[in-house]
Amino acid sequence: MRNVINAVCISCGAEYEAGDHTYTCPVCGGVLEINYDYDYIKSVLTKEKLAERRDPTLWRYMELLPIEEGSELSPLRVGGSPLYRAERLGKILGLRQLYIKDDGLNPTSSLKDRASAVAVVRARKAGIGVAACSSTGNAASSLAGNAAALGLASFIFVPERAPAGKLTQLLIFGATVISVKGNYEDTFKLSAAAIEKYGWYNRNAAVNPYLSEGKKTVSFEIAEQLGFRVPDYVAVSVGDGCTIAGVWKGFKDLYAVGFIDKLPRLISVQAAGCCPVNRAFETGNPLEPMEENTIADSIAVGVPRNGAKALQAIRESGGITVNVSDEEILDTMGLLGASSGVFGEPAGVTGTAGLRKAVERALIPPDALVVSLVTGNGLKDVSAARQAAAARPPIYIPADMGLLIEEFERRNIRP
Amino acid sequence: MRNVINAVCISCGAEYEAGDHTYTCPVCGGVLEINYDYDYIKSVLTKEKLAERRDPTLWRYMELLPIEEGSELSPLRVGGSPLYRAERLGKILGLRQLYIKDDGLNPTSSLKDRASAVAVVRARKAGIGVAACSSTGNAASSLAGNAAALGLASFIFVPERAPAGKLTQLLIFGATVISVKGNYEDTFKLSAAAIEKYGWYNRNAAVNPYLSEGKKTVSFEIAEQLGFRVPDYVAVSVGDGCTIAGVWKGFKDLYAVGFIDKLPRLISVQAAGCCPVNRAFETGNPLEPMEENTIADSIAVGVPRNGAKALQAIRESGGITVNVSDEEILDTMGLLGASSGVFGEPAGVTGTAGLRKAVERALIPPDALVVSLVTGNGLKDVSAARQAAAARPPIYIPADMGLLIEEFERRNIRP
Repeated sequence: MRNVINAVCISCGAEYEAGDHTYTCPVCGGVLEINYDYDYIKSVLTKEKLAERRDPTLWRYMELLPIEEGSELSPLRVGGSPLYRAERLGKILGLRQLYIKDDGLNPTSSLKDRASAVAVVRARKAGIGVAACSSTGNAASSLAGNAAALGLASFIFVPERAPAGKLTQLLIFGATVISVKGNYEDTFKLSAAAIEKYGWYNRNAAVNPYLSEGKKTVSFEIAEQLGFRVPDYVAVSVGDGCTIAGVWKGFKDLYAVGFIDKLPRLISVQAAGCCPVNRAFETGNPLEPMEENTIADSIAVGVPRNGAKALQAIRESGGITVNVSDEEILDTMGLLGASSGVFGEPAGVTGTAGLRKAVERALIPPDALVVSLVTGNGLKDVSAARQAAAARPPIYIPADMGLLIEEFERRNIRP
Repeated sequence: MRNVINAVCISCGAEYEAGDHTYTCPVCGGVLEINYDYDYIKSVLTKEKLAERRDPTLWRYMELLPIEEGSELSPLRVGGSPLYRAERLGKILGLRQLYIKDDGLNPTSSLKDRASAVAVVRARKAGIGVAACSSTGNAASSLAGNAAALGLASFIFVPERAPAGKLTQLLIFGATVISVKGNYEDTFKLSAAAIEKYGWYNRNAAVNPYLSEGKKTVSFEIAEQLGFRVPDYVAVSVGDGCTIAGVWKGFKDLYAVGFIDKLPRLISVQAAGCCPVNRAFETGNPLEPMEENTIADSIAVGVPRNGAKALQAIRESGGITVNVSDEEILDTMGLLGASSGVFGEPAGVTGTAGLRKAVERALIPPDALVVSLVTGNGLKDVSAARQAAAARPPIYIPADMGLLIEEFERRNIRP
């Protein structure tokens, strides 16, 4: 990879060759980060060159990705998700320039496809025929789907609480699914042991530094879709920490190659019932495990393995942390859907729920340019959506116009 | 609309102004079709002009759409869905040039978004603030989502059997949902009465001729994505008949403006438990109602209101009809997912199931250029997917490596 210099430990600064076997620092155990030769990249990539490309997927940013020359690319349409100007929602929230990035429209319906696409391409290039991970759901289905599309086998470890929709998706993609009696941490440990034993490609966002490299493409798209205007704030839901780290890396990359001239501030939003990253940021204490007590299962991560990267991203960006209750998350699902036609899963709209709260608390000026990232499709967790919609149940009636009119009157509906 | 001449009854040939109040022929009750001025369109749209456009949505084909000048367009990213070369699946099926068009990646996760986008734009332009329809699910959620995005209210009539995922999506989009005790026909009739009484915009594909005009854009995209090579066959699942009619109209439009020099043959695939269109085609008898007896709820339409248009499309194209069992549909869900990373709902993969059967019966030569249209996302109906995945259940174990190894051995899994 002409564009990649090496992999650097974010804890102790030790440097390693960027390969597929050293994922965490052999010296201190820290997470690695991929380090690019931005001078070289500047010499081969310009905004104008980018603008000419027809490929809408994340591969349009090839010069900024850790992909070996001659790799077979994942054929799914990963990335290229729409950025919507959300005027109605903006009015409700009190923001004049609000945009929604709907990453639930990725092939397996979450942002995680960006990471998995990079993972399977690297696995294939390294000659590894099986990819594996532990996941509360979206990383898993994205790995299974992207592996299937590229002809790789996948072994997926899920905690027993994973919603049925997500499990089913894995099975349809032909994955071998191991449902582990325990929490995310137990699941992660078993997956790590099996990956070690069998030599599978390791797609655990916890340790694999290439995954946030895939995720960062969401920031490339946001910037490009805004004509390289930089948002003042980007609201992101945070679980393991890999996504917010990727979002930050994306903007830093663009800054390093001179495509943008400032950086956004990140709004790190966690569920109040599981907010170890935000707690560590707010208290200044080290990360401590927390219970996983929230409806937003995709971000219910009590021991965030990418917590250090996430904290670094929030700090460097001059970011804000906000915690939201499950009620606020569910309420935001309906708000986003009814105002914008975007249906996000609970973790998918947690960023928007936090944004709403941040505006209410006057942490964000009303004229700020704000992007709220929706990370997963609401169809992924229909039972949660049903709770969100419980306040407005369907009208159940026989096929009779008279009864319909009666029901409208009784419910004060003006048709 | 400079590009539209009028609306013509497909049964008696009577001609009407293309407006928003006459949807079926006042003379004979036939369904209308929008009639374009292709000479004018040729003078304003060329392949080269099209190639320069950056808008990936269906609005890139504006010159071929029934949209009034100055209309506010639906902001969702409708259309622009990926066309995948499906080599692995092609090998399994015995086809050398197979493509999958994944329309489940539309904003509300089905092809119906194309029709609803056109509907809400016309409603808004006509000054109507409420849109309504009856639907087994996808038309409904697409209308609710597109209406929400454009700021319209929606009233949706669904038969009681509609899957939970689809109902929930409607409620999240803020629709008023009326769940009707009865079948699709009962639901349709009640919606028609309410639409008449309240003056709502009528998005019933049964009668609104603009909907297949939205759906036809899927064919525009297929042709454009293939570099204007024309598929020899296009496989489509058929329920009401509106989608296959739209697919056919799209190719005919492109032929009329000289963008393509031949037309594809359509493969009309229905569920064996509800196949009134295919039965009428095969027997030559008039359309007769059938029971709605299939897991593929989106195409379980016993009285297809667009049956005449569908039959015309199959006939004109020199098409083929194939009926498939629910087992074949479920089996194809897993096959498509594991070979291609595409997760379709039962009705969404019915076209592919029928294609498979047509190849087995040697109705299609192995070197034909074939496109199979996947019309809806598998997350829409997780319970069906669970049935499809039942043969490969997860492995449930505690977090213990020894137990995992035992399970692999017991199940003959080679990790």
